[in-house]
Order: sequence, then C-alpha cells, then structure tokens
Amino acid sequence: MGRLLLLAFLMFGAATPVPPALRAFSSLHLSNSFSSRPAVAMKYSIHYIQQKVDHFGFNTDKTFKQRYLIADTHWRKDGGSILFYTGNEGDIIWFCNNTGFMWDVAEELKAMLVFAEHRYYGESLPFGAHSFKDSRHLNFLTSEQALADFAELIRHLKRKIPGTENQPVIALGGSYGGMLAAWFRMKYPHMVVGALASSAPIWHFENLVPCGVFMKTVTKDFRESGPNCSETIRRSWDAINRLARKGTGLHWLSEALHLCTPLTNSQDVQRLKDWISETWVNLAMVDYPYESDFLQPLPAWPIKVVCQYLKNPNVSDSLLVQNIFQALNVYYNYSGQARCLNISETATSSLGALGWSYQACTEMVMPFCSNGIDDMFEPNSWDLKEFSDDCFRQWGVRPRPYWITTVYGGKNISSHTNIIFSNGELDPWSGGGVTKNVTDTLVAIVIPKGAHHLDLRANTAFDPTTVLLARSLEVRYMKHGLHNWSRALTAFHKRESHFLCFSESRDFSWF
Amino acid sequence: MGRLLLLAFLMFGAATPVPPALRAFSSLHLSNSFSSRPAVAMKYSIHYIQQKVDHFGFNTDKTFKQRYLIADTHWRKDGGSILFYTGNEGDIIWFCNNTGFMWDVAEELKAMLVFAEHRYYGESLPFGAHSFKDSRHLNFLTSEQALADFAELIRHLKRKIPGTENQPVIALGGSYGGMLAAWFRMKYPHMVVGALASSAPIWHFENLVPCGVFMKTVTKDFRESGPNCSETIRRSWDAINRLARKGTGLHWLSEALHLCTPLTNSQDVQRLKDWISETWVNLAMVDYPYESDFLQPLPAWPIKVVCQYLKNPNVSDSLLVQNIFQALNVYYNYSGQARCLNISETATSSLGALGWSYQACTEMVMPFCSNGIDDMFEPNSWDLKEFSDDCFRQWGVRPRPYWITTVYGGKNISSHTNIIFSNGELDPWSGGGVTKNVTDTLVAIVIPKGAHHLDLRANTAFDPTTVLLARSLEVRYMKHGLHNWSRALTAFHKRESHFLCFSESRDFSWF
Repeated sequence: MGRLLLLAFLMFGAATPVPPALRAFSSLHLSNSFSSRPAVAMKYSIHYIQQKVDHFGFNTDKTFKQRYLIADTHWRKDGGSILFYTGNEGDIIWFCNNTGFMWDVAEELKAMLVFAEHRYYGESLPFGAHSFKDSRHLNFLTSEQALADFAELIRHLKRKIPGTENQPVIALGGSYGGMLAAWFRMKYPHMVVGALASSAPIWHFENLVPCGVFMKTVTKDFRESGPNCSETIRRSWDAINRLARKGTGLHWLSEALHLCTPLTNSQDVQRLKDWISETWVNLAMVDYPYESDFLQPLPAWPIKVVCQYLKNPNVSDSLLVQNIFQALNVYYNYSGQARCLNISETATSSLGALGWSYQACTEMVMPFCSNGIDDMFEPNSWDLKEFSDDCFRQWGVRPRPYWITTVYGGKNISSHTNIIFSNGELDPWSGGGVTKNVTDTLVAIVIPKGAHHLDLRANTAFDPTTVLLARSLEVRYMKHGLHNWSRALTAFHKRESHFLCFSESRDFSWF
Repeated sequence: MGRLLLLAFLMFGAATPVPPALRAFSSLHLSNSFSSRPAVAMKYSIHYIQQKVDHFGFNTDKTFKQRYLIADTHWRKDGGSILFYTGNEGDIIWFCNNTGFMWDVAEELKAMLVFAEHRYYGESLPFGAHSFKDSRHLNFLTSEQALADFAELIRHLKRKIPGTENQPVIALGGSYGGMLAAWFRMKYPHMVVGALASSAPIWHFENLVPCGVFMKTVTKDFRESGPNCSETIRRSWDAINRLARKGTGLHWLSEALHLCTPLTNSQDVQRLKDWISETWVNLAMVDYPYESDFLQPLPAWPIKVVCQYLKNPNVSDSLLVQNIFQALNVYYNYSGQARCLNISETATSSLGALGWSYQACTEMVMPFCSNGIDDMFEPNSWDLKEFSDDCFRQWGVRPRPYWITTVYGGKNISSHTNIIFSNGELDPWSGGGVTKNVTDTLVAIVIPKGAHHLDLRANTAFDPTTVLLARSLEVRYMKHGLHNWSRALTAFHKRESHFLCFSESRDFSWF
C-alpha cells in the first residue's frame, strides 16, 4: 500500500480503534472517564433495528441489525426533544462515551439521546464476518446508505415510542460523524430541525481547499507549543534518512526508537516515517487541555509535553532521533507500560480502520499533501492516480473524487438551513471545515485552543473559556431551533390554508 | 396480473407510449404539432453522456449512454440561464416535443433548453436490450439514480460548455417528471436555483391523501362535461356484467364494442372493464381545450365530445353499451382509421410501460381506490398485500410503500425553497399534488379548466385565460429567481467574510 493511501485512511479510521474493554461491554452503566468533574451517569439501553442492506435498490431484500443506544433519563414527553448522534466510523458505544456534551445538555433540552451506529462498524455489520470480504460485500458501505439508515431509524422511533411522534430531532456528530450530521440535515431536513456538525471537514474534497492545509495546521500546533518544536521535527526526517543509509543504521534506529520489530529495509524506513508523521497528526487532533484517553492515554496539552523533548534542532542526527523517541513515548507510553513501540499499530486491521480505508477509497477522497516549507513534513504531493491504483489493489474499487461534492454540494450549500459548524483552531481538520458563516442559518463557530471536536466532549474544570462559550452558543442555537420548531408546528395546525389562484397582489419572496 | 397493479402502472406508464414515428426520428427539426398557432421551430441537437450505472455503490464501474437534447437558439452567455427538463418515463424526444412552454419562454429567459432522458427509457438503457431482463438488471431503475444522473449531467455541461459555468439552472418537469423536478431541487439545491413541478403528485403516497381522490376527480370531470355523463358510466359496469352473464353475452359484447379479439371468459370481461376505466382516466388527463395528440389524436375538450354519447343512463343494457362504444370510439378512433378496438393496447409492452410498471412495484407505490359512490367506477379497495404479491410475481421484487415519503419528506417539506407546484383542476393527479402554498417559496398554482400539465404545453389561441395566467406567473417566479440568483452571486463575490467567534450580539434568525 502506498504512502498516500496510508495517510488518507489514517486520518479518521485508525484514529478510532475501539479499546477491547469497551468492545466487550454490554451493560447499562458507563461513567465518564474524567476524574476532574462529577461524572454524569451515562445510562443507556442497547437496541437493534432491522435495516435494508440496500436502501437504493430492490434486487436484494436482505436486512441486517443496526445497533443504537437510547438514554432517556432526562427525556420529557411534554416539550421534550431528541438529540440524535449520527454515528461514524467506529463502535457506537465508544462514541457515546466520548460525546459528553450530549449528556451534559440532555436535562436542559428535556432530550432523549439516541446514538446510531454506522453500518459496517461496531456490531452493525451487514454481512457479519463477511462484511469486508470483497467489494461485493462492501458495496453498501456509503454515506448515502448510512444517512438512509438514520432516516429509517428516526421513523421507527417515532412510530415505536409514544410521545416522540411530534418531537423535534437535532442531529449531532463529530468528525466524519459531523459531516453526516450536516449532510443529514441537508438531505433529510424533514427528519431533523437542525444539526450540530463538529469538526466536520465537509470541504476537504476535490480542490475546495488547498491539499496542504491539514499538515500546515498540524505544524502550527507544534510551532506554537514549544520553541523550535516544529523545526526539530522538520529536521528529523533527513536525520532518519542519513542514519538509515549507514551500515548499521537500521539496527541503530530500531534500538534507539525501541521498535518492537526491527527495521530491515528502506520500505520499513518509509513506514517508520509515516508512522511518526501520523503520531504528530494524531497529537494535533487530541491536543486537549486535560488528561484524556481518546486515541491513547495522554497528559493535558500533550503537544506541549512532546515539545519539551524537541527544543533543539541543532544537534547530531542520533541525538535528534533519541529526542524524537522521547516525544513519541509521550503518545505511545504515557502509562509507562509499553515495552516497545509498534509501527504498524495505527495500521491495525480493526474494523473501524478497515471500513474507513474502504470509504477513503471510494467516496471519502480527501486530498492531502505537504511541502516541507509551509509544514514540518517531508514533501509529498497529492497523486490521485497513485491513490486510485492503491485502492484498486487493496479493494478492487476506484475512488470517485468528485462524487461527494456532486451529491452534497461542495461550497454551494447556502440554500440549506440550520446547521452549526464548529471547529477547533488547533484541529487540523478545521482547514477543510466551515469556519465562516455561510448564511444566517448556516453558522460557523471557531474555538481558539480547541482540538478535534472538543466541544462535543463533556464539560471539565480544565476547559478553556472558548469551548465553554462555544457550547453555550450551541445550546442557545439548539434551544432557539427547538422553540421555533414548536412555534411553527402550532402555527401549522392553526393555519388557514390559502388557495393561491392568481392573487398576484402578494409579495414575491420566492428565491 | 391483478387489477390494482394494472391500474397503478397505467396511470403514467402506458399513458406515454412513444409513437413509432418519433422513435425513428433522429434529426434536428421538429415542428410543433399545433396548427392553431405559429409553430416555434424546435431545433435541438442530440447528445450522450456516459453515466455510472450505479451512483450509489462502487462494486461495478459499468457505464451507459444517457441521451439528452440541447436547444440553444435563444441562449445567451451574458445573463442567460438553463432550463433543465427532468425527463420522466418515456422517450425524451416525445417529452421535448410536448413541452412547448420551455420553447415559448426560452427567448425571454435567454435560456438554453436541456432535455435529459430518464434511465431505462427511450434510448438510455443501462443494459441495452437486457435492461428489463430481471430484477438484477432493473436494480438501478430508481428515482434516486435518475436524480444523480441529472446532477452529473449538469456538472458535465457546466464543465463542457463555456459560458454556462456560473449560469443558474431551473428544473422543469411534468407528471412523474414534475416530481423529479421538485425532488431534484430538494435533494440537489446546489444544482438548480428552483423548480417548476407541473402536475406532480408528490403526495400520492402512503396515506398522505385519500386513495379515492384520483377517481373522484375523473368522475367530476365527466359529471361537469355533460348531463348524466358520469351517471351513465357508473351504470355501465353492471350493464356489462349482466350482459356478460347471458348465453351469447361475450360474443355480443365483443361485437358491440368492435373488439379486435373476442372476449372468451370472465377474466376478459374484467380486463375489458379495466381498459374502459383507464380510457376515462386517460381522457381526464388529456382533456385539453384544443385538438391534441398527446396520448391519442383527440378533439378539443374530448370529454365533452365523449359525453354527447352518454346522456341517458336510463336505457337498456345493450343500448347503454352501444353508447359506451361510441364514447370509446372518440378516444380510440378520432382519426377514423381504426377497424377494431384492442383492449390490451394500453397494456403495451413498450419500454415506457415496462419501466413504469417496475417503478410502480418498487418506489412509486401510489394507492388508488374507488367506491362507486363518490366516483363512477366499480368499488375497488386498495390492497397492498395483493399489490405486493402481483409485483413479486411480475418482477421478483416487493414494493416499499413508505420509502418515497422517508426519502423525500412526505408532507413535511417546508424547509425547502423555490418550488412552483402547478396543478390543473381537471387533472386527476391534482388530488395528490401540492395545491396550496406551503411557504412563501413553495408556492402552488391551481389552474381551473386545466388538465394534466397543460401549463407545460405550448401557447395556443385556444388556451383558457387561466393557463395563460398560470404561465405568466410561472415566468414571473422564474425571472425573479434568476434575478435573485445573479444578485446573490454578485453579493457572494463581494462579501466580506465574517469570522464569527462569540460575537453574540447578532440577531438569531436561525431556524
């Protein structure tokens, strides 16, 4: 597999492996992992709905079980609402557990929380163990099918749960789940009155944003987290290259970096550098202001901690690499339990990663590049041909890089309404996100000091003011939306119908 | 095939067989068939675009040629626009030739006319002669795939034709094509600034409208077109039944009705009655104020002509049936050339009918019923189970009657904008259409004295004032929309971007 493919699929996919402990978890109690605050009890029940494997064709009538979670402690039949998490590329319990915002606002919005698992992830496998077997079985892994699952699920809930029939639903999601929340509002506005799309890079497609914007943001995060930090990383690549070319270089590098499996050839060296790059990328995503355990157990502001080891770019190659090891160790061994570092770790074959790899090879074609000047990475251009060939080798499919913009509108989304796009300024994905208001009802919230969907995480005592403000603004928008929805519903029921038949005296507000 | 299925698929499908003369037609000149007015020269060129057979999956990368027509006589690069006909269940040349409205307004709107053929109709067959072979080949015949074809085509045109890049597109269509135009604006609002959906029964699904509304309107048309007309028809069914039960009744009926193939059993009698019902239905659709040739060559106000033979319900059964024959003869033999009447004629195996039969058995499940009291037909309840079984026998698929409302919103469409829904009061499809304004930008135009998408037909000297007013209102809306779009585009280019970051002083107009 080529480097670009690896890069693309690691952005989301491998970033969300499900900890084995959670996979086995199936009961009703999860408590929030932040010791810094009174934990909101996360009580939910687990449910399943039979979904069509193919919503868009009638040749097969196969169905599969989609998993979803319901938390209704604070839900009220009278004046209540439904917050619907549009699940993304991983186990839904893991997302449920990492979306404390919904739990925090449930009471205020009298909301039922619903977390819907994305098909082909977690337990929601259309063909069970065969789901990833080949392109035929993977054919139904698309964002459109996932949105249709959500629509069917909402209809199902409204039929099944008395009191929900006329309640407004708001879609929420982060990252790819944020894209799904936004797209769900765009494509199924009759299902949800609005959406909160957190860290949703809906513009990271085709040439809507420069392909280098992602790595530029990662670099900025490191540059601003410690003196010489990004410069030290920038110089590390050549140091590694030079060392690798020496007689015993591969052995030395393997020892210095405490690799579980020694490097044996130049391909391994490339894999090593990709793995290190990806570590910096992941750190930029999870640069949270408190100790957390999203991708890995990490200290507060982990990049600052990492950068303490990367203060001096003007040292020998070997010392530079040893410092890089110390920095990597922050990410991979904060617990102090790791005995060696495994460079294939993020390329795990966990379901989440596999599924996202396929999605990146079909619809979710996000161009990435780096040039080593505006960013701290080795130059790497975006080569669609190479990417496509890699995809064909791995999955037997070729990407359609233009499809997402055709179907979801690219930058031309102003006719939609009621979507909050929130982005953290630290988050590398913000470059592909909506960070300026598009219209009065497509609003952008930018969160200084915020990493990847920080706003969707639970309130903590360590949150910067910016994210607290963002959350309160989001709640304000949501309450406003829910209120207006109720008002509109009442008006609709009372409304005198007007039979327009050439009464041309009215004002034209069309278009 | 059961009666209900027949009824359902005859509503649109068989109603649009393509005259053989048109099928063979492939050059650049068609003139309008109305001798009553100066013909607008219909000059168009024929084009093809390679489309993915499956827009929503990646397992197959098969493509097929979709046909489309372009007429650019009046198109202007400067300030021009594109009127895009969202082709429905038939040969696109036939629709092009029956949508004179677009030709009539092209100059005023400086518009390029594009007529896109619907997949599985006309020449746009995904698998050539095998397209209707089985449910596997038919799997890609859905409205969603058709809309995706339209979206790809618009992108293609904007890339290919210099000057179109930034021009606004308006979708137009009638009947099922009107539904597609409305749904296209709903699902791809980034592709079209608005839609004119003429005679589009987007609410003729599930239980959104009473299943009897269609036959009730047909009956009303006959009741108001001549004294005792609907009552005579209401009595004819029992007359036929009584005659059929007599010793030589089948022979007598076959002779009296000049049938090409004699009736031989009670099933034939049912087919005969279905065929007669369908004739009245078709007449209600094409009750145009002038001589026309839409489904059949017909006189002006054909129901009035038909009703001249149906003035007296109080005659003997045999005389009643003879009068029915005279009435049928108006529809089937206006030219005077027919030597006998063929009761399987509307159940032809032409592509259009085949395709629509499949669509009615999958997505386009429109409940119809009659009770003989509110309408002039034999009582016939809507039996989904029977319908589904019929579909399974014929196509190996089962309908999903709820899917269209799930995907397109049913009556909950108020968050969409810029759709004109026009309906003729005479048109039986108006009962399933939007005949009241939903919002200021989802407007309804009701056309008294208008039959099925009369407004989309060319101007004639015989048009009632109502349709002239409707057309002028439609043009006004369209011009307003195009104007606003240009203004919005200019504003967008000039706009200062606002970086919203907790500037909470703004007004909340969200939701």
